[in-house]
Amino acid sequence: MESMMIYMPILMALLGLIYMGIKRSWVMKQHAGDGKMKEISDYIYEGALAFLSAEYKLLAVFVVIVSVLLAIVSFIVPTTHMLIVVAFVFGAIFSAFAGNIGMKIATKTNVRTTQAARTSLPNALKISFGGGTVMGLGVAGLAVLGLTIFFIIFFQFFMGGIWTSTMDMTIVLETLAGFSLGAESIALFARVGGGIYTKAADVGADLVGKVEAGIPEDDPRNPATIADNVGDNVGDVAGMGADLFGSYVATVLAAMVLGNYVIKDMGGSITDAFGGIGPILLPMAIAGAGIIISIIGTMLVKIKSNDAKEAQVMGALNIGNWTSIVLVAISCFALVTWMLPETMKMEFFGEGLLEISSMRVFYATLVGLVVGAVISSVTEYYTGLGKSPILKIVQQSSTGAGTNIIAGLATGMISTFPSVLLFAGAIWASYAFAGFYGVALAASAMMATTAMQLAIDAFGPISDNAGGIAEMSEQEPIVRERTDILDSVGNTTAATGKGFAIASAALTSLALFAAYVTFTGIDGINIFKAPVLAMLFVGGMVPVVFSALAMNAVGKAAMEMVQEVRRQFKEIPGIMEGTGKPEYDKCVAISTQASLKEMMLPGLLTIGFPLVIAFVPMLFGMNKLAIAEMLGGYMAGVTVSGVLWAIFQNNAGGAWDNAKKSFEAGVEINGEMTYKGSEAHKAAVTGDTVGDPFKDTSGPSMNILIKLTCLIGLVIAPILGGHVEEGVAMLNDQQKVSIEMNVENVDLAEAIVTYSTTVNGESVVEQVVYTGKKAEVEAQLTAFENATNVKKGTATEITIEKVEINKQ
Amino acid sequence: MESMMIYMPILMALLGLIYMGIKRSWVMKQHAGDGKMKEISDYIYEGALAFLSAEYKLLAVFVVIVSVLLAIVSFIVPTTHMLIVVAFVFGAIFSAFAGNIGMKIATKTNVRTTQAARTSLPNALKISFGGGTVMGLGVAGLAVLGLTIFFIIFFQFFMGGIWTSTMDMTIVLETLAGFSLGAESIALFARVGGGIYTKAADVGADLVGKVEAGIPEDDPRNPATIADNVGDNVGDVAGMGADLFGSYVATVLAAMVLGNYVIKDMGGSITDAFGGIGPILLPMAIAGAGIIISIIGTMLVKIKSNDAKEAQVMGALNIGNWTSIVLVAISCFALVTWMLPETMKMEFFGEGLLEISSMRVFYATLVGLVVGAVISSVTEYYTGLGKSPILKIVQQSSTGAGTNIIAGLATGMISTFPSVLLFAGAIWASYAFAGFYGVALAASAMMATTAMQLAIDAFGPISDNAGGIAEMSEQEPIVRERTDILDSVGNTTAATGKGFAIASAALTSLALFAAYVTFTGIDGINIFKAPVLAMLFVGGMVPVVFSALAMNAVGKAAMEMVQEVRRQFKEIPGIMEGTGKPEYDKCVAISTQASLKEMMLPGLLTIGFPLVIAFVPMLFGMNKLAIAEMLGGYMAGVTVSGVLWAIFQNNAGGAWDNAKKSFEAGVEINGEMTYKGSEAHKAAVTGDTVGDPFKDTSGPSMNILIKLTCLIGLVIAPILGGHVEEGVAMLNDQQKVSIEMNVENVDLAEAIVTYSTTVNGESVVEQVVYTGKKAEVEAQLTAFENATNVKKGTATEITIEKVEINKQ
Repeated sequence: MESMMIYMPILMALLGLIYMGIKRSWVMKQHAGDGKMKEISDYIYEGALAFLSAEYKLLAVFVVIVSVLLAIVSFIVPTTHMLIVVAFVFGAIFSAFAGNIGMKIATKTNVRTTQAARTSLPNALKISFGGGTVMGLGVAGLAVLGLTIFFIIFFQFFMGGIWTSTMDMTIVLETLAGFSLGAESIALFARVGGGIYTKAADVGADLVGKVEAGIPEDDPRNPATIADNVGDNVGDVAGMGADLFGSYVATVLAAMVLGNYVIKDMGGSITDAFGGIGPILLPMAIAGAGIIISIIGTMLVKIKSNDAKEAQVMGALNIGNWTSIVLVAISCFALVTWMLPETMKMEFFGEGLLEISSMRVFYATLVGLVVGAVISSVTEYYTGLGKSPILKIVQQSSTGAGTNIIAGLATGMISTFPSVLLFAGAIWASYAFAGFYGVALAASAMMATTAMQLAIDAFGPISDNAGGIAEMSEQEPIVRERTDILDSVGNTTAATGKGFAIASAALTSLALFAAYVTFTGIDGINIFKAPVLAMLFVGGMVPVVFSALAMNAVGKAAMEMVQEVRRQFKEIPGIMEGTGKPEYDKCVAISTQASLKEMMLPGLLTIGFPLVIAFVPMLFGMNKLAIAEMLGGYMAGVTVSGVLWAIFQNNAGGAWDNAKKSFEAGVEINGEMTYKGSEAHKAAVTGDTVGDPFKDTSGPSMNILIKLTCLIGLVIAPILGGHVEEGVAMLNDQQKVSIEMNVENVDLAEAIVTYSTTVNGESVVEQVVYTGKKAEVEAQLTAFENATNVKKGTATEITIEKVEINKQ
Repeated sequence: MESMMIYMPILMALLGLIYMGIKRSWVMKQHAGDGKMKEISDYIYEGALAFLSAEYKLLAVFVVIVSVLLAIVSFIVPTTHMLIVVAFVFGAIFSAFAGNIGMKIATKTNVRTTQAARTSLPNALKISFGGGTVMGLGVAGLAVLGLTIFFIIFFQFFMGGIWTSTMDMTIVLETLAGFSLGAESIALFARVGGGIYTKAADVGADLVGKVEAGIPEDDPRNPATIADNVGDNVGDVAGMGADLFGSYVATVLAAMVLGNYVIKDMGGSITDAFGGIGPILLPMAIAGAGIIISIIGTMLVKIKSNDAKEAQVMGALNIGNWTSIVLVAISCFALVTWMLPETMKMEFFGEGLLEISSMRVFYATLVGLVVGAVISSVTEYYTGLGKSPILKIVQQSSTGAGTNIIAGLATGMISTFPSVLLFAGAIWASYAFAGFYGVALAASAMMATTAMQLAIDAFGPISDNAGGIAEMSEQEPIVRERTDILDSVGNTTAATGKGFAIASAALTSLALFAAYVTFTGIDGINIFKAPVLAMLFVGGMVPVVFSALAMNAVGKAAMEMVQEVRRQFKEIPGIMEGTGKPEYDKCVAISTQASLKEMMLPGLLTIGFPLVIAFVPMLFGMNKLAIAEMLGGYMAGVTVSGVLWAIFQNNAGGAWDNAKKSFEAGVEINGEMTYKGSEAHKAAVTGDTVGDPFKDTSGPSMNILIKLTCLIGLVIAPILGGHVEEGVAMLNDQQKVSIEMNVENVDLAEAIVTYSTTVNGESVVEQVVYTGKKAEVEAQLTAFENATNVKKGTATEITIEKVEINKQ
């Protein structure tokens, strides 16, 4: 049983995908409506396919370029294997395929939900949530399946399927990082491109349709209305799915990397029933268990009464969600107890190698689950209807748009307080429990419920679309009322889902960051070094500029849409009377092209900066370890600033949105009931206009920015750091290493390292001289020692011959 | 000559203050107008005095509380001397006095400028710029005078006026840090409180006066109009003055601290003509020279033609400014050549002790001057009338307030790109030239022109007030036209001045940060340690929350003002007809009270967080060096995030302001000329409402936040770090230190340090045991060695008896 554990996640993933298939065919069997309903739904479906196929074309070019780059790197760098290209391509394909499944089911479920809402609310929920479930299980199933299969392949290929050494496993995991990079690249296109798409279509449709032509929202005469509805799916379904797919894979990968170093800390090998790789398998096992748990969770989401309100629907979702979280906690306990040695040795900074109980790893997973749950509550507090921050924004709307904007900005800014304290506490606690392995497992536990979270997330835009279809096909009011109940709950889950996504991105980035430092073999990232501090500043700036570029991109894309809609209104005869047919596809094409074009610059910023920081100083002959530290400073800057700007933008945007929505039911301002159409409402609409790109474009893009930055760092890591020497050293079992160290005084030290190695079959004696401050030389020596330490069964003696400290 | 060099800065400061006195009496001798002009001016003067006296009362309480806290600390911590309290109190008094001079002269100069503008533009410039000169020289003169006097006193008191050791000088400079802390505390009240005051009065006056009662701006019937005019002086004159006073003092202090460590790197003492403290005196000498240079610069600012336009006025200011910068560069060259040894030894991270030419220190000062000049151009580009970012915001105003807001936000955000790259480049370059001493001297050189910068800055609000008085006293149009020319130039210099202030705050904070790390004796700040990383996150969050609190404070204070103005309009008979007299003083009082009350929470956040981070973990027995590193991470987080948010908010605010102003002369939107009163203009006004607290309250407050955070860290430094042992060790000349180090394997090490010391006259043998990871133990040992190294003439031998590394 134990020895087959490596296949368990595959089994779970397949079970998840099978259940997905069953659920999918159940949804597809439901009545898809008729007449106008079906027609509109078909337009949305085709629009979504049009976006996907345009995106795939661009993606294909991107994947080919990056593959060539990776192939070149793998030729130059001995530790980087060609297989990383294969992993990268498949990571991209798996993520794209998951997105494809999600988009298709979402655009098929919407009209079925509308149809069901004609007779029954419970049924409408069942169908819309069913669509969400298909999406969630598709993403989680494919993520776990892909990652596990490639791990097993590389484990076989590089190590013959049995544990040899940390060094060999490092190569396995470095190659596996290609899969994660592929997945996150897709997320860049889906989340950033999708974010631009959805808001460009939305703003474009509103500006000409509502404002200039004076026709209502979702009116079929508006040529951009289909693009607008497609946008909901592109942004909220495909974007969110790709984002979480990326987080899921990256988190598990980072935890595996750190698990490998736990084995190293424990002496280079451990004896357990899992082939000696229990700590590496554990995160995959948790991910696998999470799929089954999510299936159970989704089964619990149901309501009975046709007269149910928002509270009952929300309650049903909560039951499913909380059950999943509790079950993940229980399974973490079981898996940790089963798979990890009872006590483990782990290196803690400043405290050295400590012996800890494996229970502490379990506590770390609890930290992750708590963060996931609490961050959702924090988000809901700051953006929820009827909560005090929203009421304040509503009050401030009475004195105009200016004060509404200030109040919204301030709300988003203040919301960083509890969120950041929560993250900081989580980093501290999970590290205190089980080092950076604990941080990565906290993230893994939180991500285990991804399928459930996505089901809850995706059900929102499906219901939103269902409402749109009801409106456009002129159903009876009761239909719209029922879809509105689902949509309203969907708005809340959209906000909390964004909280979950940013929490997952933050923890994932931290885990990747830790994996990066461990990979490069540097002793840490010292921001007292001026170049590192400079890069911390630069890293802090990138999310701010990225956000601005994303916001401007929405503006530009929306303007193109405006021109097209105006043209159609002018040139197509009878369009306003409903006799002429708008060219929906042209608007879809414009949104698609503009969004993919406009995401180039922010995308280039994301990918370009780490490459420039890594390779330009190398051209000037800078020390590689110093570069590794600079890049680490950059990564930290991007992560800290990116998390802050994500929370700020998401919550400000969410708050403005709900402040505006508050006017629909009416709000009391200075003792008077105020409704839609009032001056205060107009001010709130202005706030929402600002908030739209905040919450749907630039805010969520931060997740991708910080994860992709840290992943690029991880992929570059073998090129930097002491890793290169390590790679060369590994080739030769017979090498000798001798280190002479002569410390002339407390400040100056010199160490001469001589070793022989085999390059292309010839034995070469190499020498490395480290000079500088004593502590620095020590650190470089330690890095070198660590590198030589991990090679296959070679006893190495390192003698520091003379250590003298002369004081004045 | 050389041995008297220590008194040179005092001489220069006194010369500056004498020139200030002459200029002041010249300004006061000018015709102060008559009738209504004089009456309004008197109201503004009295309002300003009312704010100052209320502020002083609160300040007195604050100073007493902090003094008591500092006294307690100095009783507990052996290295902190009671004199720090004296330094703190005088730092506060000097800064407050400088602010007082500035406020008084500004509120006396305004009406004289109006009067002069009745006949001559050149004269009006001469008077308004004369007022600015008084302000600038008052701030710079008192800053240099106070700092130098206290340095000489402490140098005499602790060292008898001759060089003994780095350790003793450290105590001198640690005590001197009290002066800087006092100065920066005043800046907190003046900049944050002042920022809230000015916008609360502005918004309050506009909301009821312009919007509700429909009377024009600066109308004497509006009870808040005097408070509004007082606010310009409180925010732009006193606030900016206190901000730069604090930067000036802190920069010079940090450079002195790092100069002390240069001497340490050179072997503990150097022989030069300046009593062996040339590197410590250099920053003071540059500051002193800067005062004389600024006087020369101000003398060059004049125009001849009565028909001059903005360009001529700007040109005159530029001539003065650029001359100052070039002269500072020349004097830096002369002083560096004269005062520093030809070659110096400096410790560079990773490269050890390097021998560098003193010319490299000069190059570092050039870096500072370039940053000061370039950041002003960057700021002007992003906020200047007629420049492309402003034109884009104007275009975006045509589609409503929402798009105007997005464009403004995006402009502010993108402006962080060149600014941060500039800062990052400056950190890198000045460090590469001359280590952190180079970074501090870059800041010192930039700050040398402070008097000139402040003269340029303060002339703006004076001209603004002059215009207001012209309006209120119904002068002929030509008077307003002339003051408008000055005011318009003043708006540009206000924006560039803010750029200079943030650049100075950023470089000052970096210098303080470097001084902090050196003081605590930690080896660096490693953000790979989880608690340090957690604090980096927390530090990054604080500026965001601080900004939100400051913005909300403006809103609350403005609402109080609105209530009062409404009350007066209702209760005072004949007020609208001009027969009843508004109670101006009540509005001034409300603005004063509200602003001082509302700054409490952000102030508490600024001061409280570093104290909590330092002392709470201490209660739980956490290692002090680990705490020092955490606090360092916090400081870095605050600085990076604070600089970003300062640039973002200042530039977004400035851009919105000028986008709105563009409509006054008319702008071309989609081929049509558009003016004030259009829908697009209304949208731009909304943007300006949002921008007001950005650029005048929360943005500039960031400067204080980051500097004060780093200063508090510096003052706490002796309590943390290896410094405490150092202090105890210093008491005993006969102590012996022996260190046993036993490295059991590469990961685990133990070091036992035994030394004897004298506590209260008794000899006590103490033992410190360091265990943990080898590199960590090494670092702790190094810190300990450094500490014992610097005590008076004691030969110490440290022998690491056994170093063994067992590899598996």
